[in-house]
Amino acid sequence: MFQTAMPTQRTRVVRESHRGVYDRETVYRILDEGFLCHVGFLVDGQPFVIPTSYGRKDGNLYIHGSAASRMLRQMKEGVPVCVTVTLLDGLVLARSVFNHSMNYRSVVIIGKATLVDDPDEKIAALRALAEHIIPGRWDDARQPNERELKQTSVLRLPIEEFSAKVRTGPPIDDEKDYSFPTWAGVVPLKMTVGSPIDDPRLDPAREAPPYVKNYSREARS
Amino acid sequence: MFQTAMPTQRTRVVRESHRGVYDRETVYRILDEGFLCHVGFLVDGQPFVIPTSYGRKDGNLYIHGSAASRMLRQMKEGVPVCVTVTLLDGLVLARSVFNHSMNYRSVVIIGKATLVDDPDEKIAALRALAEHIIPGRWDDARQPNERELKQTSVLRLPIEEFSAKVRTGPPIDDEKDYSFPTWAGVVPLKMTVGSPIDDPRLDPAREAPPYVKNYSREARS
Repeated sequence: MFQTAMPTQRTRVVRESHRGVYDRETVYRILDEGFLCHVGFLVDGQPFVIPTSYGRKDGNLYIHGSAASRMLRQMKEGVPVCVTVTLLDGLVLARSVFNHSMNYRSVVIIGKATLVDDPDEKIAALRALAEHIIPGRWDDARQPNERELKQTSVLRLPIEEFSAKVRTGPPIDDEKDYSFPTWAGVVPLKMTVGSPIDDPRLDPAREAPPYVKNYSREARS
Repeated sequence: MFQTAMPTQRTRVVRESHRGVYDRETVYRILDEGFLCHVGFLVDGQPFVIPTSYGRKDGNLYIHGSAASRMLRQMKEGVPVCVTVTLLDGLVLARSVFNHSMNYRSVVIIGKATLVDDPDEKIAALRALAEHIIPGRWDDARQPNERELKQTSVLRLPIEEFSAKVRTGPPIDDEKDYSFPTWAGVVPLKMTVGSPIDDPRLDPAREAPPYVKNYSREARS
């Protein structure tokens, strides 16, 4: 089940090209572990980068349009976008400053995002967005009504032109630096989940459900 | 010590404008807590968004040019960029799907990044980059030699045109939804630091220094 998309001239990893990964499975795994993306788009020749949540359904990435009206306005007109998702895994401390690095997994998708018009696809996309962030929530929350659906815009970006970049493992120093008298290694970083905080207006008898209590970003997908 | 930059037409927060923050102190605090930014730039009309580390020194943001040669090539020619830093603090689970949100702090800086030519500024910027990521490291590592300095490009982006966006606190539901029978509240998220992993080639007698052992991303600056 290993689909590969050939990198195009535009998505080929230029720097440190040995870290480039182009198979769809790796890309999906990164997309499914993250839930915050940075969307790049143009306004009058000026690039903007806005953080927003996203969902994935099959080969499409969905963005909740209301996150950035400026972005949305542009996207409606079919301006190209870039969506980048980055998972940070650690600081890599080499003996030399020059060889310091980070362990990370990132995905870059470029293409045209278009407005989802079909009501069924829209509902499915909103469900994918909610379930992507916290599986189990959609069925447990009050689902969107007609008015809210009208107020909400959803954008579809086909995952067609993409690349991933992955760095793992210890620092790589120049051979002669291995004797330099300093510590070297990796400082792991991880997004961790704290204990849920009840809404002040929550019925005190109501406990957080298992999908909240056991919430974790790891080992998903 | 509260400097305020008026938002320009380009940096004014459009969506949820009550979350817009434009004072320099808040912006610096967010920049100093994060260390991964997403840089947006243009290549042949296509926006690209690349994750990279950064440092701040006074009113300038510095980017380690080698992170993205394509970006750098563009930047040398003076193409406008957007640098966005996002700190994610929690998932906000409202009773209605529509009112779900995230707690976060983000900064958007737009402007022109230019290559740092002056050797002193270049060293100072590289030091700021290293110290920004892990304070104490610069003096404890093998510092860049002439050859490495030549290989390294550093870009300066003045922090002049910027805005921040901050969301904190519990979900805000429509009044009639407060009786909806589901849990509501905040799931806190935090970037946490694991135990340092020694490089396999590290002298086993060498312990991790305090700035590594006690490394934390919080309460900095």
